[in-house]
Amino acid sequence: MAPMALRDGNKSKKLVNNGPLLVSRIIDTEKAPQPAEAIAIERSQTNFDPVKMHQFLEGSVEKSDLVLSLFKSIERDTFLQTSPEHYDMGYKDERALVAQRIDRMARYLELEDPKKFWRRLNLMTVIDPSMGIRISVNLGLFLHCIKGNGTDEQFNYWAKYREAGSIKQLYGCFGMTELGHGSNVAGCETTATLDIEKDEFIIDTPNISATKWWIGGAAHSATHTVCYARLIVKGKDYGVKTFVVPLRDSQHNLLPGIAIGDIGAKMGRQGVDNGWIQFTEVRIPRYFMLQKWCKVDKFGNVVLPPLEQLSYISLLGGRVSMANDSYRIGARFVTIALRYAVGRRQFKKNPSDELESKLLDYPLHQRRLIPLLALTYAMGLGTDKLEKQHEVILDELERAIRADSKELINKSIIDTKALFIDSGSLKSTLTWLAADLINETRQSCGGHGYSSYNGFGKAYNDWVVQCTWEGDNNVLGMSVGKTLVKNIQQILDKKKPINTPSLLFLNEAPQWVHQKDIIIATRRDVENLDKVKLAVKVAVIKFAALLLDQLKAYKGNWDLLSHDRVQLSKLRCHYYLLETFIERIDSNTDHALTSHLANLLKLYYVTQIFTPFAADFIRFKLIDPEVASYLTLEFTPQLDLAIRPYVIGLTDSFQQPDNFINSLIGKYDGNIYENYFETIKQIHPPRHYKAPYSSAFEALLNRAPLEERDRFEKSEAAEQKLTARIEK
Amino acid sequence: MAPMALRDGNKSKKLVNNGPLLVSRIIDTEKAPQPAEAIAIERSQTNFDPVKMHQFLEGSVEKSDLVLSLFKSIERDTFLQTSPEHYDMGYKDERALVAQRIDRMARYLELEDPKKFWRRLNLMTVIDPSMGIRISVNLGLFLHCIKGNGTDEQFNYWAKYREAGSIKQLYGCFGMTELGHGSNVAGCETTATLDIEKDEFIIDTPNISATKWWIGGAAHSATHTVCYARLIVKGKDYGVKTFVVPLRDSQHNLLPGIAIGDIGAKMGRQGVDNGWIQFTEVRIPRYFMLQKWCKVDKFGNVVLPPLEQLSYISLLGGRVSMANDSYRIGARFVTIALRYAVGRRQFKKNPSDELESKLLDYPLHQRRLIPLLALTYAMGLGTDKLEKQHEVILDELERAIRADSKELINKSIIDTKALFIDSGSLKSTLTWLAADLINETRQSCGGHGYSSYNGFGKAYNDWVVQCTWEGDNNVLGMSVGKTLVKNIQQILDKKKPINTPSLLFLNEAPQWVHQKDIIIATRRDVENLDKVKLAVKVAVIKFAALLLDQLKAYKGNWDLLSHDRVQLSKLRCHYYLLETFIERIDSNTDHALTSHLANLLKLYYVTQIFTPFAADFIRFKLIDPEVASYLTLEFTPQLDLAIRPYVIGLTDSFQQPDNFINSLIGKYDGNIYENYFETIKQIHPPRHYKAPYSSAFEALLNRAPLEERDRFEKSEAAEQKLTARIEK
Repeated sequence: MAPMALRDGNKSKKLVNNGPLLVSRIIDTEKAPQPAEAIAIERSQTNFDPVKMHQFLEGSVEKSDLVLSLFKSIERDTFLQTSPEHYDMGYKDERALVAQRIDRMARYLELEDPKKFWRRLNLMTVIDPSMGIRISVNLGLFLHCIKGNGTDEQFNYWAKYREAGSIKQLYGCFGMTELGHGSNVAGCETTATLDIEKDEFIIDTPNISATKWWIGGAAHSATHTVCYARLIVKGKDYGVKTFVVPLRDSQHNLLPGIAIGDIGAKMGRQGVDNGWIQFTEVRIPRYFMLQKWCKVDKFGNVVLPPLEQLSYISLLGGRVSMANDSYRIGARFVTIALRYAVGRRQFKKNPSDELESKLLDYPLHQRRLIPLLALTYAMGLGTDKLEKQHEVILDELERAIRADSKELINKSIIDTKALFIDSGSLKSTLTWLAADLINETRQSCGGHGYSSYNGFGKAYNDWVVQCTWEGDNNVLGMSVGKTLVKNIQQILDKKKPINTPSLLFLNEAPQWVHQKDIIIATRRDVENLDKVKLAVKVAVIKFAALLLDQLKAYKGNWDLLSHDRVQLSKLRCHYYLLETFIERIDSNTDHALTSHLANLLKLYYVTQIFTPFAADFIRFKLIDPEVASYLTLEFTPQLDLAIRPYVIGLTDSFQQPDNFINSLIGKYDGNIYENYFETIKQIHPPRHYKAPYSSAFEALLNRAPLEERDRFEKSEAAEQKLTARIEK
Repeated sequence: MAPMALRDGNKSKKLVNNGPLLVSRIIDTEKAPQPAEAIAIERSQTNFDPVKMHQFLEGSVEKSDLVLSLFKSIERDTFLQTSPEHYDMGYKDERALVAQRIDRMARYLELEDPKKFWRRLNLMTVIDPSMGIRISVNLGLFLHCIKGNGTDEQFNYWAKYREAGSIKQLYGCFGMTELGHGSNVAGCETTATLDIEKDEFIIDTPNISATKWWIGGAAHSATHTVCYARLIVKGKDYGVKTFVVPLRDSQHNLLPGIAIGDIGAKMGRQGVDNGWIQFTEVRIPRYFMLQKWCKVDKFGNVVLPPLEQLSYISLLGGRVSMANDSYRIGARFVTIALRYAVGRRQFKKNPSDELESKLLDYPLHQRRLIPLLALTYAMGLGTDKLEKQHEVILDELERAIRADSKELINKSIIDTKALFIDSGSLKSTLTWLAADLINETRQSCGGHGYSSYNGFGKAYNDWVVQCTWEGDNNVLGMSVGKTLVKNIQQILDKKKPINTPSLLFLNEAPQWVHQKDIIIATRRDVENLDKVKLAVKVAVIKFAALLLDQLKAYKGNWDLLSHDRVQLSKLRCHYYLLETFIERIDSNTDHALTSHLANLLKLYYVTQIFTPFAADFIRFKLIDPEVASYLTLEFTPQLDLAIRPYVIGLTDSFQQPDNFINSLIGKYDGNIYENYFETIKQIHPPRHYKAPYSSAFEALLNRAPLEERDRFEKSEAAEQKLTARIEK
């Protein structure tokens, strides 16, 4: 954490002036803005301990301590620390920097316990998402795929004996997406054809649209890939399975039959060497196929087991992390924007005011930013819960398989289904909200939000791919929405309760689906947490039931419900966050935090649930229309005002240090203008006031008159000469 | 326009395979996607002439012809044309490219008529917004400021005699914004103090927050600036006026007292050399002050005339252009996304289908994109009208001033006020909508939307500053909203009609403000254009009247209405677009276009007005809640379906050629995969399969075991040696 000791504020640098007209004296009547002072004063009003709040947000003292110690370690590490100069990098330099950081991370991986390392990776992903994904492709996607789809022996061989798990010898990439195939993995065209005679698979790219595309790490890093390809045995297509395919030899040269290229520039994550791969009759031993679930013997007998659905569990880790990232990135940009909003002044309320007003003292500015602070708190608590849920399931499954217990495995399948819904709904909803959050916080910093050195642009560009990959948000949302409607169908039509743990509340559907009394009927009801929770729960139930009716009207055509399925998934995400927020407040014991958390909770559900879904809550008769208007017009501004004095303390509670936040206008000391200006001068020394292309530009300005450049060919003299004979 | 002749489609490149297991034969059962074929077939269904539609969109055959001839000229020009390689550029190279293009544009400026040149600049701004702004800073902001604030002689001197108007000798920049002052121009701190003895002004930067900041062109290009500074005469501060201040001499060296620096990397518009400027006792002759309105004589007498409000007219040109740009950029990305949505296939509807389904055959995809097509049409027509309105006002004002007619000048002031509202409301609303449009179209192209070579990332980054500069969108929206409420106040409270031309409809307020009968009461009313227009008009009136009531309740505190003032401004923008769309359809004579335009109009007002403002239309009792639900649930999908078959023709109608669109997946021939893959291979030849940093990465993978790198210091042998004595 940055030291509490504050610098001397933004001393206005008066320029020496010896003439009779002392400009500085005249201007002295106008006080220069003192952002550092303003922020220090607001910080001193904090009436709770930000470290305690951090522990609350992280879910435990232990996790909070770990995060803080990693912040320190990262800030000090020569390679991992950030620097404003990095914002100047072109993508080729960024890739080299990322490779250097991967090297550093590999050294930590050798030494520290896995829990600490994974948290380090998780935090580094906020600073350097390109590095995050390049490591995650190998340790996450590649190895999780082998663990999920391969036998224990296969995993041990590649991860341990071949040391891919230590970022050593091998570097794996994840060969799933094809040029013509993204969301529909089952539509992949790459083939893996068994050659029984040689006991080998032939991996082949049949046509251009089957070219593996976007493969992170393929262009320059990867030595191996898990290749998603159609298993073809004796002319029969068994669908898409997974195969380990070597790409480069130990000297990092491409193997025969492998063509690889660089995909080049991207909107963001420029530090990732995404590539394309074409396989031309590449032969691999049969035992390179991952055979935990689907098995092919040397005679070409194929066994497709019943538990294949568990093989997709390897995708869940990514989604859980991305939901979690939404919290960290939200915290980063809400901190910057709120510090700036306290330090920056604009327009005087009264001409006699000594200083202009702080941005954050304008109601519109409060309304733009403070609800995002509340959302960030909700995301922090909700995604911490999701992370724990994921850890429990992985342990459980491990134990179930070790014990070879059908009962335990079945329980794992049920819990995994719940996690599919929870992570799908949180990943899609929160990555979208986080993208909006970065955009809105950037705009709230005006022009300075557009400077690279304040962090927004790069972060936004690096971020937004989260809405597309590892389950396109719309596809995930539709899928979650469909599951919810199917569950409601089972409950209402088949009268059979469901057993998916996090959806058990749907079993109350028969009781609520025809509910007619308005739940949030009065202004006071809005602060009654039981009623609020009930209203949101019933909204999910009624929404799902309505879609079920429509499905019948549309004769089972799910596509016609797509838009609303995505909406339903968002609502379900918010119910998860709301439940968690309330649970966590109930278990909080630090009374200094209570009132702040209560206000943030209210602002969260009013601005993220009741307002955007107002039309639904009204049509389902869950909220009185007059109360809904009250929420927008009066209650939201009141809550903003109540939270307003504590925004510095509430953002300090995220405990992100300056080096981590990496924004010149968003530093802890709030000395906005000096921090910004001095660094810009360091990076771009003013003595270089001519550009490399300056001489060409100067030549443009100093060019000869047009007539001269035209060799006077259009002059009267020329006209005379050229027309003399003709016109005679 | 790209030639109609289509290429042979996306022939699947079967790879030679001699083995016994012919993979290609097996996969032959799966037909490869043929995007070019799909697009050609849909194009052939077009039942109207896209060139005629283009003429309709551009407002006249003449303007359409001009635009088409400029598309051709730009596409062929060695320097102006685009190239996919440009997407690989770092910002230093981009700046050099932009400088080269400025040179080329200067040559056209010397030769072609101004109308054609300004249209060229307008179109080039879509391709290269950095170039657009660098030229506009000189020809637009700098010279318009001199024209608006200087005498005719002053303008003639700088623009003509000194040739700044030909991008020659001088290059001007616009020194308004300061590090600590953006939206509040009147709060600028730079001083211009009259030294009566020497008949000079002393320009001075009193403190760090007064540093001129973000000044486009300052870092490397500008020789002069118009400096916004406080006029100080005999110790009295007369507020902010404008002064021409030379920055560099004719050798492009900085003048004494001028400190300039490069602001460096930005989220977008990286080709602009934004800089900061500090003035330290810089002396300029008194006659460098722009003195059309405010005059200072050599004795220090200051005359502040009544017409100063006209001096801000120079800001309007930028806003009008930015509204217009919203249409062009919208057209560009809607075209890309719809072509891709027709060519791209994903998931089979039935397992027996030969091919996967086109993206655009999914209702959700239609719902994401087709309303954006409708919006783009509405933006095209509305901003064409705004542009004409601006031209008329400039001519009118010119004539009024020449004639020195008080009556004409007063009319100009009234018309200018209207343009302030119209351009402020359109600029803010449409630049936001265009930003959302780029974002949504990018997401609709899945992963490929994230590749730089498809255009979205750079365009988004270059675009979004439009929401901040030349009037921050929220500040503009609040200002428009405030004016509307004040107008309603005059009409309702003071019973005095207003005379602002484009707001005359507000004079109907007394008739409508207490209207109780629902206007859109039945499903059929939704297609009754008179009722639709009336409903939107009354919505603006009732909204403004409601805010007036609240203002009174809040005892005149406008700040508490800020959020709703911005909403009101958006609604007013849509009324402008709606009126124009209907007017234009009424005057259309080509019957082949009629049904398409009618459908686009309906989809526009349903999805952009009635749906997002549903809560307002319901609370103002302008639409029946059941009808509102019908619009979202049934009418929108119906309209999407009706427009669906014609999307290729309707986007071809924008007539943007491939080179202009500059997107590998968005080309006219629709040969998505080959266009994309072949160009990527050209830019990044696959033979460079090792990165420049590869050896370091290889060394990481091939590193020695940890024990060896630790010099075996933690081995048992070491332990024995190090503990031998101690433990003995």
